[in-house]
Amino acid sequence: MTIQNKLTVQALQWTGDALKVLDQRQLPEKIVYDEYKDAVGVTEAIAGMRVRGAPAIGIAAAYGVALSVRKHYAQSNHWRQKVAADIAMLATSRPTAVNLFWALDQMKAVLAKQLDNPITAVLACAEKIHAEDIAANHKMGELGADILAGAKGVMTHCNAGALATGGYGTALGVIRSAYQRERINVYAGETRPWLQGARLTVWELAQDGIPATLIADSAAAWLMKSGAIDWIVVGADRIAANGDAANKIGTYSLAVLAKQHGVKLMVVAPTTTIDWTMPSGDLIEIEQRNPNELLPACYNNEDSLVSAWNPVFDVTPAELIAAIVTERGVVLNPAGQGVGGLKNAI
Amino acid sequence: MTIQNKLTVQALQWTGDALKVLDQRQLPEKIVYDEYKDAVGVTEAIAGMRVRGAPAIGIAAAYGVALSVRKHYAQSNHWRQKVAADIAMLATSRPTAVNLFWALDQMKAVLAKQLDNPITAVLACAEKIHAEDIAANHKMGELGADILAGAKGVMTHCNAGALATGGYGTALGVIRSAYQRERINVYAGETRPWLQGARLTVWELAQDGIPATLIADSAAAWLMKSGAIDWIVVGADRIAANGDAANKIGTYSLAVLAKQHGVKLMVVAPTTTIDWTMPSGDLIEIEQRNPNELLPACYNNEDSLVSAWNPVFDVTPAELIAAIVTERGVVLNPAGQGVGGLKNAI
Repeated sequence: MTIQNKLTVQALQWTGDALKVLDQRQLPEKIVYDEYKDAVGVTEAIAGMRVRGAPAIGIAAAYGVALSVRKHYAQSNHWRQKVAADIAMLATSRPTAVNLFWALDQMKAVLAKQLDNPITAVLACAEKIHAEDIAANHKMGELGADILAGAKGVMTHCNAGALATGGYGTALGVIRSAYQRERINVYAGETRPWLQGARLTVWELAQDGIPATLIADSAAAWLMKSGAIDWIVVGADRIAANGDAANKIGTYSLAVLAKQHGVKLMVVAPTTTIDWTMPSGDLIEIEQRNPNELLPACYNNEDSLVSAWNPVFDVTPAELIAAIVTERGVVLNPAGQGVGGLKNAI
Repeated sequence: MTIQNKLTVQALQWTGDALKVLDQRQLPEKIVYDEYKDAVGVTEAIAGMRVRGAPAIGIAAAYGVALSVRKHYAQSNHWRQKVAADIAMLATSRPTAVNLFWALDQMKAVLAKQLDNPITAVLACAEKIHAEDIAANHKMGELGADILAGAKGVMTHCNAGALATGGYGTALGVIRSAYQRERINVYAGETRPWLQGARLTVWELAQDGIPATLIADSAAAWLMKSGAIDWIVVGADRIAANGDAANKIGTYSLAVLAKQHGVKLMVVAPTTTIDWTMPSGDLIEIEQRNPNELLPACYNNEDSLVSAWNPVFDVTPAELIAAIVTERGVVLNPAGQGVGGLKNAI
């Protein structure tokens, strides 16, 4: 547990009456926390990508509901309607991460009960979601590290780390656990257009004393050809029942390239990321973000002939995934079997 | 020839006593030309990437030799030694583009003759290299457009355009010619780390009235999966005799992905890009550039655990190439046969 204790940075902290959110847009240059005391602020923090990463989005939204109840319960007889409106607003903050909707459902279930003190109950639920996420990450870290045994090099994409979760990380949790057992070379794709790999992943790993080598996303195939990596380890924003996994744009590219180079792909995500009701990844809604995230400002005029296509997630079919690692266990070669076997696993 | 006449921007212009170089590092925000009057300046312009692209590098180097002769011939009895030293310096400016060495060899051959007026002779040679490159691009444009007939969408990578050549472009020459015949959708990868796609390619196409859609390099696989493109059309920095082609980092990635998606890859380059003596692409020297092109400045300290791997070219094996288009003709499916058949073609 040494790494857990050494962790100096957390994406989310509950202060007692506010949610502190590390503004990840300013990393690695500046470490700035913003405090939010209502659901509007938390919604903005998610939509504006101050906090990102599917598990962290879910946890932030849960605290957002807790803040909503704190604000409205004492002030209004209509607090239930106002909280319901806040929950609906939080649900619009990002479309792809299923953890968001899962967390909001958990909070709704608590609220549906007749409670003497809903403030205490919803906060307890949010804190439980947060703590269980950290515990799940440690469990996944060990399970994933078992699979990586003997690997000389791994590559990750985007940031599926402490910054994307309650703490420790999913993909980076596996890399942390593996690195503790035996030194491995860690590569990170810079992850355009937001550069989460360059700004967050290598920074987060360095905070823990883990050396990391950044590469351009387009250099991954050339790296694989060099024989430097055995595994690609990534998180997920949503996993369909058949094992198809939505993750940051570029993951599908890495998966296809990995297959052609004898490199294996591991997807690491808590079961809260699994959308049990969705039969196939083809149905996952892919968020399209503003073209201006890619376009230099000078192209931004009415009669410009230059546009951009900016999907920020893609879907990797189960056939290209060697292992899906969850806190409930591992599914090797999910193609055909899917992840349904995890639904009732302990 | 309408497009040629409409071209408003050229990477290189000979003024009569100086080489004007468009500073491509400042595009698309600013159009700035620098004038160089000696080989030192031209070497810096190439090494500093004010001018880039294999054919344009060769042309600039040829003018650099002409400038060297102009400077030293009248001033010194030892002008041949001084010009030879300038040629050696120009040869160090970039390592991968074979056009550089080809152009310098052409100039050396002129200088090797006993000449009444070497100034006129070397300048005539440089201008001939420049003019022949433009003519070659128009020829390749037509040959490549023949192959693209019926394609709905194409993607290109980096900038193999007017800016990378004497004018009209190699890959973008093909796209220009194809677009004149029939409207096609053009996609460009932004091309990290220098963003030649975002800064140069879509800008250059828009100057000619050709709409273009920019994508993150890592989104190319997802674009291919959507069925939007039939061909990937790229330039080359060096082609080995067996048809292996070195080009901007990420080209190999696109080639592997294309094969898996039923998309075809066309490499467009003048025969000056072919290294006839090099049997295989495995022998091509790959330029590694400064890690700081990828790393945020805050990682740049002595005890940093964060590093970067920054190869700026990769090599695509002939097996992944559907067509190599040169001014001397086309080689379809170069794997096995190589490009040797072009050596003595007219």
